Amino acid sequence: MKIYFAGAIRGGRDDAKQYKEIIAYLGNIGQVLTEHIGSTDLTWKGEISKNDNEIYKRDMKWLKSANVMVAEVTVPSLGVGYELGIAEKLNIPVLCLYRSEKGKKLSAMVKGNNHISCQEYHNLTEAHLCIDAFIKSLDYLGGSYQ
Amino acid sequence: MKIYFAGAIRGGRDDAKQYKEIIAYLGNIGQVLTEHIGSTDLTWKGEISKNDNEIYKRDMKWLKSANVMVAEVTVPSLGVGYELGIAEKLNIPVLCLYRSEKGKKLSAMVKGNNHISCQEYHNLTEAHLCIDAFIKSLDYLGGSYQ
Repeated sequence: MKIYFAGAIRGGRDDAKQYKEIIAYLGNIGQVLTEHIGSTDLTWKGEISKNDNEIYKRDMKWLKSANVMVAEVTVPSLGVGYELGIAEKLNIPVLCLYRSEKGKKLSAMVKGNNHISCQEYHNLTEAHLCIDAFIKSLDYLGGSYQ
Repeated sequence: MKIYFAGAIRGGRDDAKQYKEIIAYLGNIGQVLTEHIGSTDLTWKGEISKNDNEIYKRDMKWLKSANVMVAEVTVPSLGVGYELGIAEKLNIPVLCLYRSEKGKKLSAMVKGNNHISCQEYHNLTEAHLCIDAFIKSLDYLGGSYQ
């Protein structure tokens, strides 16, 4: 199974370690195409070895080849939102994981969207359970990804 | 011309006044479907008279009916990013306006994306010029919106 993981880069790296842990777990299930998003060396400046168009083209190629998308959406990110819209149009199943934080509320475009599976979690154990349930739901849908 | 204006709500309301000014200018060009985004009464909690699914369905209906989308993307927003992805898939011309700010960088999914017209501005006069040029470019593309 090819997994497109999405998390904020230029939107802010507060959750980089969280992304890393989730990516490590997803790595047991399939191939994570976007492993670099969990790198704690990656700052809000983004990748510096590629220009924006190169990054865009590579990421879209990866997204189109993915069987599923998993996004951590607690830190608001324009790029992650864009990818959610594209994934929906490509009929790629999407799981959005988020943590409730004081003074923050998840977008209605995601929370109120029946095309997106949206799950709140409080710790990594819960995140793992949400991922397991999401993958299991794909099997029910007739997917054969493993 | 029907214009879908997008700006951050739950992502943060730091730019609410900026949105209001841009919406006022767009109102001279066409009908702004999402005028409420410029309301300074609207907080990060979002609209409270509707649930998330009602907001999602209304906004998607508006977006599908729009001739153009104009987004102010300086404050990162998951919802605005999602709408950019959907607008692209609906072949709706999109203008993204942003201001460069210290410690912030625009997403490569937007900046490196040739489907989106992306313009930096420093003040409202420049924003107006960007909007005028964008609308003019639609005429060149054969659009007859007015």
